[in-house]
Amino acid sequence: MNDSPTNAFVPVFAGFAERVRESFGRQGAMALIGAQLIQVQPGHCSIALTPRPELCQQHGYVHAGILAALVDSAGGYAGYTLFPADSSVLTVEYKLNLVAPAQGDRIVAEGFVVKPGRTLVITRGDVHAERAGGRTLVAIMQQTLMVMRGKPDPSK
Amino acid sequence: MNDSPTNAFVPVFAGFAERVRESFGRQGAMALIGAQLIQVQPGHCSIALTPRPELCQQHGYVHAGILAALVDSAGGYAGYTLFPADSSVLTVEYKLNLVAPAQGDRIVAEGFVVKPGRTLVITRGDVHAERAGGRTLVAIMQQTLMVMRGKPDPSK
Amino acid sequence: MNDSPTNAFVPVFAGFAERVRESFGRQGAMALIGAQLIQVQPGHCSIALTPRPELCQQHGYVHAGILAALVDSAGGYAGYTLFPADSSVLTVEYKLNLVAPAQGDRIVAEGFVVKPGRTLVITRGDVHAERAGGRTLVAIMQQTLMVMRGKPDPSK
Amino acid sequence: MNDSPTNAFVPVFAGFAERVRESFGRQGAMALIGAQLIQVQPGHCSIALTPRPELCQQHGYVHAGILAALVDSAGGYAGYTLFPADSSVLTVEYKLNLVAPAQGDRIVAEGFVVKPGRTLVITRGDVHAERAGGRTLVAIMQQTLMVMRGKPDPSK
Repeated sequence: MNDSPTNAFVPVFAGFAERVRESFGRQGAMALIGAQLIQVQPGHCSIALTPRPELCQQHGYVHAGILAALVDSAGGYAGYTLFPADSSVLTVEYKLNLVAPAQGDRIVAEGFVVKPGRTLVITRGDVHAERAGGRTLVAIMQQTLMVMRGKPDPSK
Repeated sequence: MNDSPTNAFVPVFAGFAERVRESFGRQGAMALIGAQLIQVQPGHCSIALTPRPELCQQHGYVHAGILAALVDSAGGYAGYTLFPADSSVLTVEYKLNLVAPAQGDRIVAEGFVVKPGRTLVITRGDVHAERAGGRTLVAIMQQTLMVMRGKPDPSK
Repeated sequence: MNDSPTNAFVPVFAGFAERVRESFGRQGAMALIGAQLIQVQPGHCSIALTPRPELCQQHGYVHAGILAALVDSAGGYAGYTLFPADSSVLTVEYKLNLVAPAQGDRIVAEGFVVKPGRTLVITRGDVHAERAGGRTLVAIMQQTLMVMRGKPDPSK
Repeated sequence: MNDSPTNAFVPVFAGFAERVRESFGRQGAMALIGAQLIQVQPGHCSIALTPRPELCQQHGYVHAGILAALVDSAGGYAGYTLFPADSSVLTVEYKLNLVAPAQGDRIVAEGFVVKPGRTLVITRGDVHAERAGGRTLVAIMQQTLMVMRGKPDPSK
């Protein structure tokens, strides 16, 4: 996406990063799986996870649903950085390709805004498994978000 | 899908239901979220979950990643019922639309085989939230599975 | 979708069928490929096509892009039947699985509303190839539409 | 995709570009809409089109099905550049987001291989509308292809 570099996005809400961190902190599902918010920038977000047995499917790889939760959230928060004050974010839909088994020291999901809009925001996401100096692409995503105007996140 | 009723599928492996139950039992992620295997029939599988706070996102609804894990597994096992002996199942990709907030007494994800094939199997999935006598459609899925021939599930 | 039968949908705009027919008639692309509008009902639409060589890909089957155009339109018009007066329809996104080669006497694409909403409408679609007394499922779709309020179709 | 640059792909079949050109030339649907093959490189392909009325939908923009045909083909041929001799390419599925109206002097669809595999190849695609010195992103795609081994394209 040469014509839509991440650093071209200018947030309209100055507190965009803090808002994402607070919203992430309220997600019980992210805490349950041990996900950590790594980076929040205009139009970009990354979330990481350390694999452990109870997050795995029957072959010992991280379960696709866990990868989905990570990358759906990364894409959603990437979009949320560009939303106005007094709004929240809703995932309309996404599509996920699982391209390699997810195993390693750390799983990192990244979301990137491709097309911001007034009502809908389109993102792409990548998930990599990191291990000893290298990383492997394990999943890619394409996602549609909805801007929920006038419906900010609950403050508690 | 009038021309592809679920009950038209004839499994080639007689132990299809037991194989699904054993595979499900080995999934740490399913145990972690408290998912239960409800039904296994040729070309169909349903999985249920009782919502609890740590499975929810910031608005108090069941997290989309949890719904994804449920319906991805339901679709995968629906397909697995039709696979030959000595094979396992791999999700190639899926697409999920989230159509209503997921809250209620019970979440039920169902997977249905639409098109069985030698290498690839295509499924659809529905997720409903049940509450006091009614149910609401909360998500729909379309999925591609791969038949991993000669690679049965680990016997442990 | 037992709980969402097609005949449960009640259009809010009485002229829904005529509006679909007029909109279809203005589509140059539908005329170019020779597509015909077969049926328009609340929450449902079907479009048919007779295969001919210039609609085919390199193996002699109807090109996936043609199938996509048919089923995207069928889904879009299925949704449009439920939209208010003074609105038009926009496809936000769709996902298409191609499950068998498309050849036969006639190709029929059907769209079904799964979840109507104020801003977004979710549909599913099926494409069958008909030949001498039978039909084969060739593609399935899942789609998101947007209700464009206050932006009716151009009247000429 | 910093870790999977296009120029990292090494085709196993030396005649990959000519094979794509011949296959494209046999597609009646591409000729019908006036599509032209612009570029073929390892893991990449671009196809262009000059908009004209009969390719448009009811609002005067290029029909989504036409964009789908272009980008599905661009992704498919991007993958085909990496396939072995004696094989052909099949689109298993794709997902398309339409992000802006498609109008301009020229429409260009590009396909990029994200993950090559022995049986399945995963691609992404972008479609831009070009006009007087600028270009606008109009659609993005994510796609799964299948390597059809032992089934080369028909030679005539």
